[in-house]
Amino acid sequence: MGALHAGHLSLVEKSLSTTDVTAVSIFVNPTQFAPTDDLDQYPRPLEQDLEKLRRAGAHLVFVPDVAEIYPKNCTTAVEPPEVSRRLEGEFRPSHFKGVCTVVLKLLQLIPARIAFFGEKDYQQLAVVRQMVEDLNVATRIDGCPIIREPDGLAMSSRNIYLAGPDRKIALSLHRTLSMVAQQIEQGETDGHCLMSEMRQMLIDSGVSDIDYAVVADPTTLEVVDDVEGAVVALIACQVGQTRLIDNRVITG
Amino acid sequence: MGALHAGHLSLVEKSLSTTDVTAVSIFVNPTQFAPTDDLDQYPRPLEQDLEKLRRAGAHLVFVPDVAEIYPKNCTTAVEPPEVSRRLEGEFRPSHFKGVCTVVLKLLQLIPARIAFFGEKDYQQLAVVRQMVEDLNVATRIDGCPIIREPDGLAMSSRNIYLAGPDRKIALSLHRTLSMVAQQIEQGETDGHCLMSEMRQMLIDSGVSDIDYAVVADPTTLEVVDDVEGAVVALIACQVGQTRLIDNRVITG
Repeated sequence: MGALHAGHLSLVEKSLSTTDVTAVSIFVNPTQFAPTDDLDQYPRPLEQDLEKLRRAGAHLVFVPDVAEIYPKNCTTAVEPPEVSRRLEGEFRPSHFKGVCTVVLKLLQLIPARIAFFGEKDYQQLAVVRQMVEDLNVATRIDGCPIIREPDGLAMSSRNIYLAGPDRKIALSLHRTLSMVAQQIEQGETDGHCLMSEMRQMLIDSGVSDIDYAVVADPTTLEVVDDVEGAVVALIACQVGQTRLIDNRVITG
Repeated sequence: MGALHAGHLSLVEKSLSTTDVTAVSIFVNPTQFAPTDDLDQYPRPLEQDLEKLRRAGAHLVFVPDVAEIYPKNCTTAVEPPEVSRRLEGEFRPSHFKGVCTVVLKLLQLIPARIAFFGEKDYQQLAVVRQMVEDLNVATRIDGCPIIREPDGLAMSSRNIYLAGPDRKIALSLHRTLSMVAQQIEQGETDGHCLMSEMRQMLIDSGVSDIDYAVVADPTTLEVVDDVEGAVVALIACQVGQTRLIDNRVITG
């Protein structure tokens, strides 16, 4: 969706080192925003984005118009896989339908051998992986690690919204995920105990509204009662006017 | 779906004369059947089908298992375009979702330059065309004319179900479509008048149940009040235990 930061550019670097030709799409996809979301406010610094991609060495940038992707009579959509229903799916009901439809369309227009997605949007990656497998799309989906600011804040195009004290409160997401990793390392196996500690830590830090703060199965994203093997801790919450998400895979 | 007749083989011939390599899929797709439909009874004469395709000169036949196309955790589907909602969509609610999903999957597995579909399933062709356009699938969809028995009955794998008097009653579909063409040629422009004559003719011929008998817009499939330019007449009805469909494009 553009407004490129170091996280996006790490996908470009990964592609450049893995493949022969690197194509980047920049498209603020309206169908994955809810009416109450920040579609109109979403940053679109196209000239800066293009300059960053030029410097990074991308071979092709695809910047379609909304009317090009969604002509007036376009009514087909993708009904996303099961894994889309929980977490983000509960709070943003038509979000993954929009994501799946646009990703499928982009992969038809640019039939990439490999498509790179950030692990920051962990559930999105899981949904896209399952969609591509279910629909037999001939593209391999590769996840790339979250890139963080030096103080731990996960890179996001929405971080520019974080003014004054919110920027500091936002650090509590990463701190909470680190706490979970540490607790599991120290032998904690009670999922519900971990999750209530997550909530408490976020609230104590001044987070205004928690959509979810869970320890889940890394594939199905079902909440885990007893931690055994790998899990993923995921958080979505409101910091001031900004909704932030973050996650951490804990290999146990 | 196999049980190949001269209609299917005309698609193979068209492909052979148009393209370099002709691939045929044979797959009785369970997701396009309703629980009350004839999935279990649907004919599957695979050896005869393969022999017919060998003789016709097809280069490749793809005969996947159901579990290969729909593994256990496969939950993504295609939400079909607007044009799927009327006619067949009213009587077979999840039919086109099944059709669109399997066609998309087949076109990902075998990314054909051109895919040939029979005009016998007129609405299916319209739905697939729109789906492929909406999702930017890089395959051209070509329609091929209905192939009929010498007495006018449209070729169908379900014609084998027509025993004794039903075979004769089945001719009323073609006869009714010819009547509509003739009436329009003679200047009739009242869509509703034409449609009530269609119903009457079908009932008089012994058709037991009419799902629809309409004069419609060839693209949107909306019922036409005033015939002006091209229309398509479409019929779906029950003859004995067998549901038959037929149609005729009338260029006015």
